[in-house]
Amino acid sequence: MQTRDVDYRCEEANLRGYLAYGNAAGPRPGVLVFHEGLGLNEFAMERARRLAELGYVALAADMFGARRQGKNLQEIATLVGGLRAEPEKLRARGRAALATLAALPQVDADRCAAIGFCFGGSVVLELARAGADLKAVVSFHGVLATKLPAQSGQVKASVLVCTGTEDPLAPPDQVAAFEDEMRAAAVADWQVISYGNTLHGFTNPAADGSMMRTALYNEQADRRSWASMQSLFDEVLT
Amino acid sequence: MQTRDVDYRCEEANLRGYLAYGNAAGPRPGVLVFHEGLGLNEFAMERARRLAELGYVALAADMFGARRQGKNLQEIATLVGGLRAEPEKLRARGRAALATLAALPQVDADRCAAIGFCFGGSVVLELARAGADLKAVVSFHGVLATKLPAQSGQVKASVLVCTGTEDPLAPPDQVAAFEDEMRAAAVADWQVISYGNTLHGFTNPAADGSMMRTALYNEQADRRSWASMQSLFDEVLT
Repeated sequence: MQTRDVDYRCEEANLRGYLAYGNAAGPRPGVLVFHEGLGLNEFAMERARRLAELGYVALAADMFGARRQGKNLQEIATLVGGLRAEPEKLRARGRAALATLAALPQVDADRCAAIGFCFGGSVVLELARAGADLKAVVSFHGVLATKLPAQSGQVKASVLVCTGTEDPLAPPDQVAAFEDEMRAAAVADWQVISYGNTLHGFTNPAADGSMMRTALYNEQADRRSWASMQSLFDEVLT
Repeated sequence: MQTRDVDYRCEEANLRGYLAYGNAAGPRPGVLVFHEGLGLNEFAMERARRLAELGYVALAADMFGARRQGKNLQEIATLVGGLRAEPEKLRARGRAALATLAALPQVDADRCAAIGFCFGGSVVLELARAGADLKAVVSFHGVLATKLPAQSGQVKASVLVCTGTEDPLAPPDQVAAFEDEMRAAAVADWQVISYGNTLHGFTNPAADGSMMRTALYNEQADRRSWASMQSLFDEVLT
């Protein structure tokens, strides 16, 4: 497997992504990985490598610039809040990552998808709402609310939301509002998987409740949601 | 593959199930199949055969007696309504099917599960609520409401609900109430998969909107929900 850093820009920001791909010949489907509020760290990189093992060209994007990390809740709030307040800026950064991935010679630009965790989950949903050329987006414990709801006919991607029923960042009324948004926008393919007894951050083994009491790894939900992502990719990327 | 009718009783009712199993040696996991309001017909039998192909011993139960069929909405309402009005009777019929399956020499009684479609979906949920010895129950477009909500600690089965977001028999507020029920009863393992753009009856190719305008086959949701059932069975039955 090959891995390397990839520098790219979005307006004034210098972004440093992380690329992983196997040795299979010919253009392959590409998958973007959008990090949590913690920033592009080993967790997102490991997911990129797992995708590479599955045969995809995976680019873990850097949404904060200079691979900045959120080391505590306050730093995360500042980094995430700055982009959430300006959804067009957030979308532009997401699109810059997609353009970088799609331009790689290893990648079949017509077969790209995006996954995201926590903050990254909202990024992939924003890209879908913006009508990005993605076959699929998968949000893992992402925030589902938006300032710019999807407009009718705009979403091209198959949308899969994997959420914990006890996630205080995506409570039941937010899930219901998201479903209403998908309905109103006549999104052609969308599904929501709700895991019982599951809190925020369920895919990240480092989520032990110490930084955020309500973020807790759940091996079962992690495994199930990853398998559901693979099934969707088998459908739409091959 | 072997298939044959299996007669069994529940109180005054004569029930005629349909058994399907392959030729693998040794006791195998057993799966009950509970039919729609239409009664035990070719649809449920075909699902039993598919389960047999996957290595399970499958018994398609007869909930109405004498393999009675609902030929129109009025007949279905009478057949289903009679059992819904008496949930203990409905549960007893479900348990009779489970006892019949578990007693078969081919079956490992400690590894049984139940799936159900439409009316049969509510049957498997009632069995789970009653604390039946099932490793898993899967409801496909079932009604989720109950007269006898699960009590804390009573549910042993892993619960998977596959539902269409546009199913008028399981509208969003019913799904929300079901999730509250699972929470309140501290069910150890439960998940809900909501398929967008999907109506009632999505697994049955015969559902073409003619008998019930809001029951419509959806090949994608059918395939996805069956795959999710298989994943759960891989987890808990092997």
